[in-house]
Amino acid sequence: MTKSITSTQNFRIKNIQKLRTKVYERRLQKLFIIEGVRELDLAILGKYIIDSIYIYSELFEKYNYAKIIDNINMDIVYKTNKAVFEKIAYRNNSQGILALAKPKLHLLKDLYLSNNPFVIVLESIEKPGNLGAILRTADAAKIDAVIICNKSTDIYNPSVIRTSIGCVFTIQIAIGSNKEIFTYLKKKSIQIIATKIDAFESYYNTNFTSSSAIIIGAEANGLTDFWINNAHKQIKIPMRGTIDSLNVSTSTAIIIFEAIRQRYCIK
Amino acid sequence: MTKSITSTQNFRIKNIQKLRTKVYERRLQKLFIIEGVRELDLAILGKYIIDSIYIYSELFEKYNYAKIIDNINMDIVYKTNKAVFEKIAYRNNSQGILALAKPKLHLLKDLYLSNNPFVIVLESIEKPGNLGAILRTADAAKIDAVIICNKSTDIYNPSVIRTSIGCVFTIQIAIGSNKEIFTYLKKKSIQIIATKIDAFESYYNTNFTSSSAIIIGAEANGLTDFWINNAHKQIKIPMRGTIDSLNVSTSTAIIIFEAIRQRYCIK
Repeated sequence: MTKSITSTQNFRIKNIQKLRTKVYERRLQKLFIIEGVRELDLAILGKYIIDSIYIYSELFEKYNYAKIIDNINMDIVYKTNKAVFEKIAYRNNSQGILALAKPKLHLLKDLYLSNNPFVIVLESIEKPGNLGAILRTADAAKIDAVIICNKSTDIYNPSVIRTSIGCVFTIQIAIGSNKEIFTYLKKKSIQIIATKIDAFESYYNTNFTSSSAIIIGAEANGLTDFWINNAHKQIKIPMRGTIDSLNVSTSTAIIIFEAIRQRYCIK
Repeated sequence: MTKSITSTQNFRIKNIQKLRTKVYERRLQKLFIIEGVRELDLAILGKYIIDSIYIYSELFEKYNYAKIIDNINMDIVYKTNKAVFEKIAYRNNSQGILALAKPKLHLLKDLYLSNNPFVIVLESIEKPGNLGAILRTADAAKIDAVIICNKSTDIYNPSVIRTSIGCVFTIQIAIGSNKEIFTYLKKKSIQIIATKIDAFESYYNTNFTSSSAIIIGAEANGLTDFWINNAHKQIKIPMRGTIDSLNVSTSTAIIIFEAIRQRYCIK
């Protein structure tokens, strides 16, 4: 039975506002917010546990999106009015649907890798927009996983969800410390390739057809010594113009798609 | 002689605020705003005419940026105080320097192309952040030019300047109608390659080593029939994952760097 929420003072509505602004609350309650049809669709596809769904029918039905809640237990679906939905929705294009879902644990040991894996390791990416963009590219290329070396990264930040257009739910993600990740890659016999703007070898001369992990540094300062020292090789994307660097999500995309080209696309 | 502005009510300060918010004023006055040391540096390198410069010394000198104004006529430099600078600066990291500069005309006939040009043609890119990202990548790869098929695009939008990290000033840009650009490419015997998500040919099987213009469509709807019908060939980036598209600046970067690899990087 679908329930209705008609007051902006309802405790669930007040709680969603809290979850939106406070990372602390997201962590404590083990809940995060998903807005929009495509995003929720991908979260369900990615086997996320949905805690509750909030619908503003007028908007939702206008777009004829009913299909998405076809297989949902209606006990967790709440109908709202315009005033209530506007209190909880952040985006203009959230299409009248918002959900709360439970985070996954993202443990290295839970990653399922192919026989000849290709993974991206991100060391302290700072901007949610860059992380989201990389996750979208990683899904499009269908690489094995994105591994994040920073326990404080909130991958369920609304900006990450939005810029990844929901791919944060579809691409495998693991989070660990530098040391844990290094040990994991070593155990799996995956070659460690560090990216460094002054490396000698260019990415297009690098063979990505065997098991590879590409280690990508933070926007401003690049990789720490830990990865530089522990890498099997260092590579760069040669810069030919006036500026000395590409955006981190752009350079990651260029390397990922060169790897895909080498692995699957030779004529 | 450097002049001082100490009042937030000064007519120049009020005018900068107007230029920031109103495209109409930017067009009428033929002036736009540049914030930050690197951005101004690249505008000077790109031979833009600087109308006036506003400095908040405490911030500016802290970073030891004096070099940038070494070759500037000091008659156009105004010193401000904190209150005045905060009125005109938008970014936190504008490093105590803001300038007004004159737009260029960006005529197709003024483009200087190499013997074997590689250009990107953007049809109605909507988001300034995407345009800025593409300009940054275009500079890094040192392609011949970025051509924009939409006279209403304001390439001096502050978001374009910021996300291009100033490359809007260093890469050659021309603006024209679809028809003007098509005629130009034909006259120059440049092959026209349209990007389309359901094209048959993949970008990595496409030869980019002869004169090429890659035509990139808008974020949501892709290319119009004009370019689809007038292209010599259509290409795609094959999607392997859950989602059906890449971000437009990401896909442009992947194609640009594949072209660079083919042209310059074969072992």
